[in-house]
Amino acid sequence: MVAASTPTHRSWLRKRLPILGWLPAYKRAYLPADLIAGLTLGVIAIPQSMAYALLANLPPQTGLYAAMVTPIAYAVFGTSRALSVGPMAVVALLTGNLVAQFAAPQSPQAAQIALGVALLVGLLQVVLGYLRIGFIVNFLSYPVLSGFTTAAVIVIILSQTKHLLGVSLAGPAPPLFEAIHLVEALPSANPFAVMMGGASIAVMLVFNRCLGRWLTRLGASETVAGLVARAGGLVVVSAGTLLTWLLRLDESANLQIVGRVPAGLPPLTMPFVSVDMLGAVLPSLLILTAISYVGSVSIAKSLASRQREKVDADQELIALGAANIVAAFTGGLPVSGSFARSAINVASGAITQLSSLFAALVIACVLLFFTPLFYYLPQTVLAATIVSTVISLPDLEIVRQAWRYSRADWLTLVVTLAGALLLSVEAGLLLGIVSALAVHLWITSRPHITVIGRLEGTETYKSVERYTVKTCPHVVALRIDESLYFATASALEDALLNAALDHPQATHIVLDCSAVNRIDLSALSALETTDRQLKAIQVTLVLTSVKGPIYRHLLKSGFVARFGPERFYLSTHAAMRALGCD
Amino acid sequence: MVAASTPTHRSWLRKRLPILGWLPAYKRAYLPADLIAGLTLGVIAIPQSMAYALLANLPPQTGLYAAMVTPIAYAVFGTSRALSVGPMAVVALLTGNLVAQFAAPQSPQAAQIALGVALLVGLLQVVLGYLRIGFIVNFLSYPVLSGFTTAAVIVIILSQTKHLLGVSLAGPAPPLFEAIHLVEALPSANPFAVMMGGASIAVMLVFNRCLGRWLTRLGASETVAGLVARAGGLVVVSAGTLLTWLLRLDESANLQIVGRVPAGLPPLTMPFVSVDMLGAVLPSLLILTAISYVGSVSIAKSLASRQREKVDADQELIALGAANIVAAFTGGLPVSGSFARSAINVASGAITQLSSLFAALVIACVLLFFTPLFYYLPQTVLAATIVSTVISLPDLEIVRQAWRYSRADWLTLVVTLAGALLLSVEAGLLLGIVSALAVHLWITSRPHITVIGRLEGTETYKSVERYTVKTCPHVVALRIDESLYFATASALEDALLNAALDHPQATHIVLDCSAVNRIDLSALSALETTDRQLKAIQVTLVLTSVKGPIYRHLLKSGFVARFGPERFYLSTHAAMRALGCD
Repeated sequence: MVAASTPTHRSWLRKRLPILGWLPAYKRAYLPADLIAGLTLGVIAIPQSMAYALLANLPPQTGLYAAMVTPIAYAVFGTSRALSVGPMAVVALLTGNLVAQFAAPQSPQAAQIALGVALLVGLLQVVLGYLRIGFIVNFLSYPVLSGFTTAAVIVIILSQTKHLLGVSLAGPAPPLFEAIHLVEALPSANPFAVMMGGASIAVMLVFNRCLGRWLTRLGASETVAGLVARAGGLVVVSAGTLLTWLLRLDESANLQIVGRVPAGLPPLTMPFVSVDMLGAVLPSLLILTAISYVGSVSIAKSLASRQREKVDADQELIALGAANIVAAFTGGLPVSGSFARSAINVASGAITQLSSLFAALVIACVLLFFTPLFYYLPQTVLAATIVSTVISLPDLEIVRQAWRYSRADWLTLVVTLAGALLLSVEAGLLLGIVSALAVHLWITSRPHITVIGRLEGTETYKSVERYTVKTCPHVVALRIDESLYFATASALEDALLNAALDHPQATHIVLDCSAVNRIDLSALSALETTDRQLKAIQVTLVLTSVKGPIYRHLLKSGFVARFGPERFYLSTHAAMRALGCD
Repeated sequence: MVAASTPTHRSWLRKRLPILGWLPAYKRAYLPADLIAGLTLGVIAIPQSMAYALLANLPPQTGLYAAMVTPIAYAVFGTSRALSVGPMAVVALLTGNLVAQFAAPQSPQAAQIALGVALLVGLLQVVLGYLRIGFIVNFLSYPVLSGFTTAAVIVIILSQTKHLLGVSLAGPAPPLFEAIHLVEALPSANPFAVMMGGASIAVMLVFNRCLGRWLTRLGASETVAGLVARAGGLVVVSAGTLLTWLLRLDESANLQIVGRVPAGLPPLTMPFVSVDMLGAVLPSLLILTAISYVGSVSIAKSLASRQREKVDADQELIALGAANIVAAFTGGLPVSGSFARSAINVASGAITQLSSLFAALVIACVLLFFTPLFYYLPQTVLAATIVSTVISLPDLEIVRQAWRYSRADWLTLVVTLAGALLLSVEAGLLLGIVSALAVHLWITSRPHITVIGRLEGTETYKSVERYTVKTCPHVVALRIDESLYFATASALEDALLNAALDHPQATHIVLDCSAVNRIDLSALSALETTDRQLKAIQVTLVLTSVKGPIYRHLLKSGFVARFGPERFYLSTHAAMRALGCD
C-alpha cells in the first residue's frame, strides 16, 4: 500500500508545487537566456513597480517589495514558465480605490491597509483554487471585461493627470467628476511638471513604438533593438531624476519628488484586517480577486499555448493567491500577472521562472544599494511611465465591433463603460455582470421555435419559413433551437399550445429536440403541464431526437415511464412515418 | 388612409379592452349559467376575502371591497373568461409583511399603506405589460416557485395559528422564530378558540374532501354535490358566528371577534406613497408584483387551454395592473387571480366574466345590508378557513422529485425553502433566483464536449466514448453540446487547445457546431484568440454544421470573411472528406 501510494503522493506534490518539476530538470544551457531575460525584466520592473505603487496610493517602496518577492512565490507554485507576476496597473487602481476609503494616499496607514487587502485577496484565490471554483470568472463576459478595461485605462490616465499637472485634488470622486476637477485645476498647473511629464511620455512613446523599428532598419540585431526599445522607462527616469537633482527643481520649481525610499530588503510585515473593513470592502475585494486572476490566467494560457503546454487554471489561482499572501507579509501590495512584462520576458528569451528569480535579484540590489538615487525622481515622470504604458490598452474599436455583432453585447459593454465612468470602475463591472446575465436570459427566453416539414425526397426536416417542405395536416412538427430550462419553459408551453390552436385539425404535435442540450426541472414541469392540457383537447405530444444523455436522465428520473416510452422517437422522420405522414 | 386605419384602431382597442369582444357577442342563453356561477362565487368569496384581509394585517372590509371591485376591472381588461380576480393567500401574506413594517395590524394606517402598495404594484404591472417585459418572471424557475409556495403555505399556517390559539405575539419575526414563539405561547392558549378553530378546520376538510363524493354516491347530481361541497366556509362562518352571539363567547370566553364591519359600498380612497417607504419596500414590492402576476397568468393559461383559447400574457399583466390600481382607489388591497375560486367558477358553469360581475353584486348586497352579521364572527373561524384552504397547496413531494431529477434543481429548491423559513419568504425567493442563475451558469460553463468519429458505413459522427467509430490521425473532430456564450467560452478554448496538445500529430481540428444555438461576442472572441494560438502551432481550425441563422449573423458581422469562408463546412462528414479522412 505504501509503495503504491508514493507515486500518487509525488504526482500530487508536483501538481501543487510545479517547481519540483522544472527545477530538477533545469539544464545549464538555459542559464544565459534566463539571465539576460531576468536582467531586462528587473530593470523594467523598477520604475514600473514604483509607479504602480503610486497609482495604488501607496509609498513607492511597496511596489519594489512586491516586484521582488511575489515572483519567487509564483515560481514555486505557478505552472507558467514565462508569466511575470508583480504590481499591475488595473489591480493597482482597484487597490488604490480601496485604500483611499480608509487612509491618506501614501501614508503608512495606507500601506497597512494594502497588506490586509493583499492577504484577503490571496486567501480568497487559494480557497477558490482548491475548491476548483475559479470557473466563476466566466461571469465576466468579453464585453464586460473590455468595457471594464477601457474604463480602467481612462480612470488610470485621469488619476495620473494630477501628477502630470503637478496639482492635488480633493479626495476620490467618480471618474467624470475627477475629469471636471482636473479641468478646473488646469490654471494652477505646474508648468515644469507638465513639461517634464509631457516630454517623458513623448520619449517613452518614441522608444516603445519607433526606436526598435529604426534600429532594425539601421542593421541592429532584433535582440539589441528590442532591448533598447524597452529602455525608455529607464531613460526618462534617469534623465528626469538627474535634471531635478542638478537644477534642484523640487525647490526652485516646486516639483513633487518621490523623496526618501527606505533602503534594505523587504521587511517582514503583519497584515491586519478588521471585520468592519471587511464588510465595507467585500464587493470591491471580490472584484479585485477576480480581476487579478482573470488577467493572470489569460496571459498564462496565451504563453503556454505557444509552447504547446497546458495551464492548470486552478493551480494558477493557487499560485497567484500564494504570491498575494507573500506580498501581505513582506510589505507589498496586491499583484497579478503582467501582460507587458511577461511579453518582454518571453521576447528576451526566458526559458523558465529562473528569469523572474534573476529579476528579483536585480531589484534586491537596487533596494540594498541604490534607493537614495530615487530621492529626486519626480512624480510627474512616474505618472508619465504609467500613462505611456496603459495608453495602448484601451480599445474603443470594440464598441463599434460589438454594435455590429450584437446589440445585446453592445448594451452590456455600454452599461459597463457608463457605470464605470459615471460611478466607479467597480460599480461598472457589477452592472455589466448583471446586464450580461439579464440579456442572456432575455435572449434565451425567446428561443427560435419553428414549424418544420420534410424536404421532398429526403428524411430531413426543415423550417417551413425558409424551405419548400411537405407538412402533414394532422401532425404539427416543431423544432426548438434552445435548451429547455427555466428561461425557455414558458416559451415552450406557449409554442405547443399555440401549435394546437393554430392547427385545429391536428391530433399530434411532434417536438424535435435535436437542438436541446439540457432539460431542467422547470422545463420538465412545463412539459408535463402542457401535455395534460393538450390531452384535454385530444392532442398527443410526441418527442423526437432527444439526445442520449438527456434521455438516460429522463429515464432514470421516471419521466419516460410517466410520459410513455412509446411517445419517444429516435428521429422526427421515424415519428412522422409512425403517425402516418409519409 | 383613414378608412384603412379604422380596423387597425378597432382591433387595437379590442386587444386592449377585451370586453368589447365578448360583451357585444353575449348570448342570452349564457345568462343562467353565469348567474349560478356568480352567486356561488360571491358566497364563497365573502368569508375568504375577509380572512385574507386578516392575513394581510388589514381590517376585514378591505377584503370585501377588493373582492367586489377588482373583478369588474379585470372583466374590462382581462382576456380570460373564467379567471376570478381578488384577494389571494400568498399575495395577502406578502402584503401583510409589507404593512407590518409601517403600521399596527388592522389599523387605519395599515389600510392606508396597503392602498399605496396596491397602487405601486398595479402601476408596475401596467408598465411591464405595455413594455412587453412580463418575460422577466421566467427568472422564477419551477424549483424557486415550488419552494416559495411551500414556504409561503407554512408561513401562512404559522401566522394563522396565533388566531387559532387565541393568543397575540410580539411583532413580526422570521418564520422559524414565529414557530418557537407559538410553542411558548401554547400554555396561554384560549381553549374556546382552539376548539372552535379545530372544529371549523375539521368541518371544512370534510366538506372539501368527502362530502361531494358521498352525495354523488347517494345519487345527488354532480352540480348539487359540487355546490354543497363548497359551502363549508359558509357553514362554519354561520355556525361560529351564531354560537358566539348566542353564548356571548366574546365576553364569556374572551374569544376575539371581527367586530364592527362598516356598512356601505367601497369608499373612494386616495392612495399615498412616500419616497422613503418606496425605497424601503422596493424589493418586496417587485416580488409582490411578480408573484401576483405569475399566479394569475398561469391560472389564465391553464383555463384558456381547456377552451382552446389563447391568453395574451402582456394584456393579462395590464388587466391585473388595472385591477390593483382600482383596488388602490376603492379601499382594497393588492389582488391576484385565485386558483381555487377560478376553478369553482368554471365548475359552477361560468361562461364569461359576467359571472364575476354577478359575484360582485352579491358582495355589494352583503356590504350594504348584512355587515352587522359579521360582528360576532370569531377570528379563529376565519383563520380556520384560511388554513383549510391553503393546506392542500404545499407539496413536499417536490423536494424528493427534484432530488431524483437533478441535484442542481434540488439545491435551488432547498435554498429557497431554507431562506424563506429562516429569514423571510421574500429573502428565500431572492436567494432562490440567485441560486438558480448561478447553478445554470455553472452547468452550462462545463458543457459536454466530446471527440467524435464516423460510424462505419454511415455519414454519422458519434462520440468515441460511447460508440465504435473511425477517427482520423491528422484531424481531430470535436462536438460541443451547448451554445457558445460567455459561460462556455473558456471551456471551448480549453477543449480546442487540449485537443491540439493531446493529438500532437493533428493538423486540423474540426468543431461540429450542430448543437450550438447561439454564439455571442465573448465566444466569438475566444474563438478568434484560440484560432490565433492554434495557427501558431500549425493547427487549422474548421467549423462544421453551423446553423443557418448563426452563419448569416457571422457573415453579416464580418467574422466569416476574417476567419475564411473556406473553413466552414455544411457537415462534419463534408469537412472530413475534404481533409482527406475518408
